[in-house]
Formats: sequence, structure tokens, C-alpha cells
Amino acid sequence: MQDGGREGPVTIRDVAERAGVALSSVSRVLSDHPDVSPRMRKRVEDAAEALGYQPDMLAQSLRSGSTRTVGFLIRDISNPLFAVIARRSEQELRAAGYSMLLMNSDGDIAVEALNLEVLRRRRVDGLIVSLESEVAPGTRTGLERFNGPIVLLDREVDELGLGAVLCDHYSGVHAATTDLLARGHRKIALITGSMDVRSTRERLRAYRDAFADAGADPEDALLSIGQFTSDFSKSEVIRLMSRRPEPTALITGGVLTTAGAIRALSQLGRTPGEDVAFVALDEWPLFDVSTPSLASVARDPNEIGTTAARLMLDMLGGGEATTITVPTTFTPRESLTTIRGARRSATGRTSTTRTAAPAAAKRAAAKR
Amino acid sequence: MQDGGREGPVTIRDVAERAGVALSSVSRVLSDHPDVSPRMRKRVEDAAEALGYQPDMLAQSLRSGSTRTVGFLIRDISNPLFAVIARRSEQELRAAGYSMLLMNSDGDIAVEALNLEVLRRRRVDGLIVSLESEVAPGTRTGLERFNGPIVLLDREVDELGLGAVLCDHYSGVHAATTDLLARGHRKIALITGSMDVRSTRERLRAYRDAFADAGADPEDALLSIGQFTSDFSKSEVIRLMSRRPEPTALITGGVLTTAGAIRALSQLGRTPGEDVAFVALDEWPLFDVSTPSLASVARDPNEIGTTAARLMLDMLGGGEATTITVPTTFTPRESLTTIRGARRSATGRTSTTRTAAPAAAKRAAAKR
Repeated sequence: MQDGGREGPVTIRDVAERAGVALSSVSRVLSDHPDVSPRMRKRVEDAAEALGYQPDMLAQSLRSGSTRTVGFLIRDISNPLFAVIARRSEQELRAAGYSMLLMNSDGDIAVEALNLEVLRRRRVDGLIVSLESEVAPGTRTGLERFNGPIVLLDREVDELGLGAVLCDHYSGVHAATTDLLARGHRKIALITGSMDVRSTRERLRAYRDAFADAGADPEDALLSIGQFTSDFSKSEVIRLMSRRPEPTALITGGVLTTAGAIRALSQLGRTPGEDVAFVALDEWPLFDVSTPSLASVARDPNEIGTTAARLMLDMLGGGEATTITVPTTFTPRESLTTIRGARRSATGRTSTTRTAAPAAAKRAAAKR
Repeated sequence: MQDGGREGPVTIRDVAERAGVALSSVSRVLSDHPDVSPRMRKRVEDAAEALGYQPDMLAQSLRSGSTRTVGFLIRDISNPLFAVIARRSEQELRAAGYSMLLMNSDGDIAVEALNLEVLRRRRVDGLIVSLESEVAPGTRTGLERFNGPIVLLDREVDELGLGAVLCDHYSGVHAATTDLLARGHRKIALITGSMDVRSTRERLRAYRDAFADAGADPEDALLSIGQFTSDFSKSEVIRLMSRRPEPTALITGGVLTTAGAIRALSQLGRTPGEDVAFVALDEWPLFDVSTPSLASVARDPNEIGTTAARLMLDMLGGGEATTITVPTTFTPRESLTTIRGARRSATGRTSTTRTAAPAAAKRAAAKR
């Protein structure tokens, strides 16, 4: 496309001719080489503009072998956790000279497959991906066809030898469930998204193990595992809370799930921390200063973003695809309740991954 | 690059030869033409895969004159308002057959200029942009150089003839300030970001006009106009609240500003709606079900996203660059307080753009 004599788009040769400078000078200007005088830059840019020349990024990248861009495929951009992970990854990548192109799959596996294809054709150097599904054929094909390093966020896809940053959901959920059991709760509802993703499987495994470790039996009827949406969660919480006897504790997996559950409780006139114990898996901004403050199992999105970007940079530099696990933290807060007569647990001690002081105590100290 | 006989990348001709089909058949498969049999698709895809053929999206786009992608430049992706706007725009664009590439400027004007350049070189067909600055030279150059329709989100850039979706901040903030004045407040602090963006200018204009309309004088010392960050807001609220006499009402412009102010009040042991009246400009998720519920001036991010995408599609189809204004809504909630002895205003009646029932009343009705 760039051969000067042919019919077609304006080429770098045309620009050099019009500017009356060498081809190499045009190349230096267009590649933002530091060793270019302002006068030369202006001369070339004026000629390029007069001719309507468009630098051919793809041709440049074929020469250099790199587009210096990394694609970031996000499951749902309106989830603040993902947004912070993406922002932090981008900061790390930018510091290393890479731009990041973000695409949102909006919770739709067909869009996910399409986005993987767009990023592949746009020839990004690598992909960081938060998948909607680990098993959808279109997604799997998209991952297989991509010719460069891939880092998965909190997902497991077998046999493709991809890098991954996993979250230790198990420890945090085990600690939270153990705390609720020690507070006397047995009717503990768990509301979360599809088993098609690792986080759900790990959370459910931890929930069941905590019951087994306490010598108690979970009630399968209190498990509500379907979609990571606010609507699903809201209707499920309304349904669960109308059972008799009703659940005494709710664990909600995912920020939209938590939002839906809070809306449901508000509609039912129930208050977390008074009428029902509440633990959110993943933090919504301002949980720590809401009233009542909400107990949570959190992961640090900045840590996840940094880790993913560094693994990507390492793999772009020829490093091996590895799996890195980041911790989760159970933080007991005011939204926990204790069943009358239960031996009260020492909150916070059960967290196996990181300890965190109860925010309620901090708040009480700050209060005049 | 696509000329069959030359040294270089595998071409569509090579794929046709290997698959034993016509060039036009390969073209139909690669462009996802609906009129292709599964058998033909597999045959071509197998040949393409065996040869390691990479479809040249740029070459395709030069032929069609379109990459069928729109770039979306976001000021701060971790702001949930922008995230929802971007998601909604993307849904609209996708329904029209466009993919959306998102880039985050992270509140940095140098990154903003760089991202504009990356999207330009990637030849997106159009740009939807939420700018960090309306005046930074790098941003302005980036907008000028882009050769396609541009839709600005809530920003004014003169003389470039760009499309824009503006928000009617003025009406909402005027209603909120008028309501606080009617509740007897005079020491009303306004904390928000830079005057370099339209939203701040409009909000300040409305604040001043509401005072003038009530025959009252605002105190310039209670204006804190600097950065749209949580840290700036937190330290400013701590500073303002240690003045004697302290402000009796806070208006916070922007979700991060609101978050910082709530953290500051929590640290100071003050409760919005008890110790100080509080109005948030822009909604944070769950404002309506938080305790106390927070009064706000909100804009609908889904409406903004839809409007921006439709304007973009219209401009891509040859329509003129126009400016569309979407309303804001003042919603009084529990975080408002009334100064003793003040004539209480009829909350909600002052909203000039849209009426909204007080959430407190709804909550009270729902509470058992």
C-alpha cells in the first residue's frame, strides 16, 4: 500500500518529496524520534497535512514487530473493581512505553468473542483478559487464535499455557463463613454468579468447607448461584427472605450482587447488621464509611492490576507464562450480627490471608 | 503488502490457492459475510490457519473507507459515571455494527494527547471524548488533527465545529443551592474540580446566581475549586470544617469529590444530615439506599451514553455536528438539614429540570 508509484494512498515518499527532505527525515519525524529539530518537524508535518498523509501504524508495526499496545478485555466496565484493575494495569504498561486499548464485553459471550477478534486484528502485542466465560467456544477460539502473550484475570483456561493472576477467594470466604458460624448463624444464604467462572467455584468450595470444619451442614436451598447482576440478586434476596424460617445471614458475591441485595433489603425494610448479618464479597467504594459499615471479603484491585501488567511485560520480554495468586482479606464490620446465645467469635482473628482491624472500632474512636 | 508475488506476509491469494477456492470466497469468509456455507467457512479458515494468515484490517478499511470502530477517550475510567456512559455508548454503537476501543487518560493531559494520537493512527472512524482539559495545547492539537467526527462529552472546545453532549448542570445546582438557602443555610461550601472544564464553571455560576436570586451573599472563602480527586476533597473538607464558624452545608462536585468529603466527615465524626447538610453533584451508586440517603444533583449516564452514540452514528452518516443538552435532576434526601428558625422550603418543588420524589419518604413507607 505504501509503494510510491502506485495509485492509492499518499505515501511517506510523497511527503518527503513535497517537504524537500530525505525519506529518513520524514521517518524520524513520524516516529517521534527525539533528535529532530522543530523546524524539520514543522516542515514534514506541513507537507504531511497538505497531502492528507496518514501514518500507517500497521506498516510501522510490521517493521518493528510491535504495535506497543496491549489489549485489555473487560467483562463489565461498570464494575468499579474491574475499572480500577484496568486503570492500574494501564499505568504500569504506560510506564513501560505501552498504550492500552480497552474493550468491554458487557457480560455477553458473543461480544467477548467479537472483541477478542477485533483486538487480534488490531495486532495488539498482548492481551490481559477478564473473561465472562471460561468455557464458551467462541472465547476459547479467540484465545487460541491470538498470537502473543495472554494474561487471564481470575480465570482458569486449561491447556493453552496462558499467564494468570488469580485471587485467593477461598481463604477470605472461608474466614467470613467461619466467623458467621461462630456467631451462631446456620441459615447463611450465598448469592452469586455463574459456576462458569473460577471465583464462584472457589467461593462455594470455601463456604462448604467452613461448614464442614465447624461440623455443621449447609442448606442447599440457601444457595443462589446464577448471574452477576443486580436484578438477579435483588429478586433472589426477596425470594430467600420470604422463606420461613428466613436466612439470618447473607453473603453476596460480586459488587452488582451486593448492590442488588442492599436494594432488596431496603425494599423489604430490613437493615443489614440489625435484621440480618451481611458479608459482601468484593468491596464497593465507601463500604468502610457507610452506615452500617459492611463486612467484606476484599481483594486489592491495584495489586491485581499491577501484577497483571508486570506479568504481561515479563511475558512480552520473553518470560514464561506463570500463575500468580493475590490474597483476599476478610474485614468484619458493623453489618455482622450475633445469634442470641452463640459463643461470640473474636472477629478478625479468623482471617487467614491478612488481618484487618474492624472498621467499627476505628469509627467509634474517631466519633466525638 | 498484499501483493501476492512479493516476499512478505501471507496474502489472501495464498489462502485462496491453498483452500482451492476463489479469491471472492476467501474475502466473503474473512469479512463475515452471511452468505457463506459452514463448509466453505471451515475450508478457508483451515487454510488461513495453516498458513498463519493475518487479515489486514487496515487494508480492508482502506478499501471500505471505514474501520467500523469508534474510539472512546475517557478522563478517568474508575469514575463509575464515565464507566456507565462508556458502556451505554458501546451498546448503541455495537447495535449499529461498530466496535468501540476505549482509552483512559487517567486525569493526565499528556496521556490524553498521547491517546488521541494512538486512536488517530489506529484509524478509528470517530471519537467520543470526555476531556481532562478543554484548553491544553496537546489535547487541542489532537482534536484538530483527527480526521473524522468527534463528539465531546460535557466539554466546550471552540471553533473546531465538534458535536457535543452537554449536561444542564446549571438548573440542578441552582435548585439544590436554592433549597439549602430556603432551609436557612448561608455558609454553604462548594468543593469541586478545575475551572478548566465546563461542569465546574456551570456549577459555580448556578451557585452564585442562586445566592443572588435569594438576595444573599456567598462567601468566597467557602469555595474550594481545585482537583477532581478524593484526596483534594478530603483535605479541603477537613480544612473548611475547622473554620469557625464552620460551614453548615457542603456541596461536592464529582463522585471522587463526594467520596473524599464523606471520608473527611467520617474522620471528623460528623454525620451528613445531622451535623451538616450534604448535597452531592453526580450520583455514586447506592446513594438512594445509603443511611442517611444523600441528596444529589444527578445526570443519567445511560441517557448521556445513548445520546453521544446516536449523535456519533448520525455524524458518521454525514449528519451535522450539533450540541445536545441532557437534563440534571436535584433529588432532596435525608442528608439535608434545616437551620433552626428558617422557613422550611418545599423540597423538590425547586427542581427546574425534573421532579423527583424524596427518597426518604419512599424509604419510610417501605420500612416495617
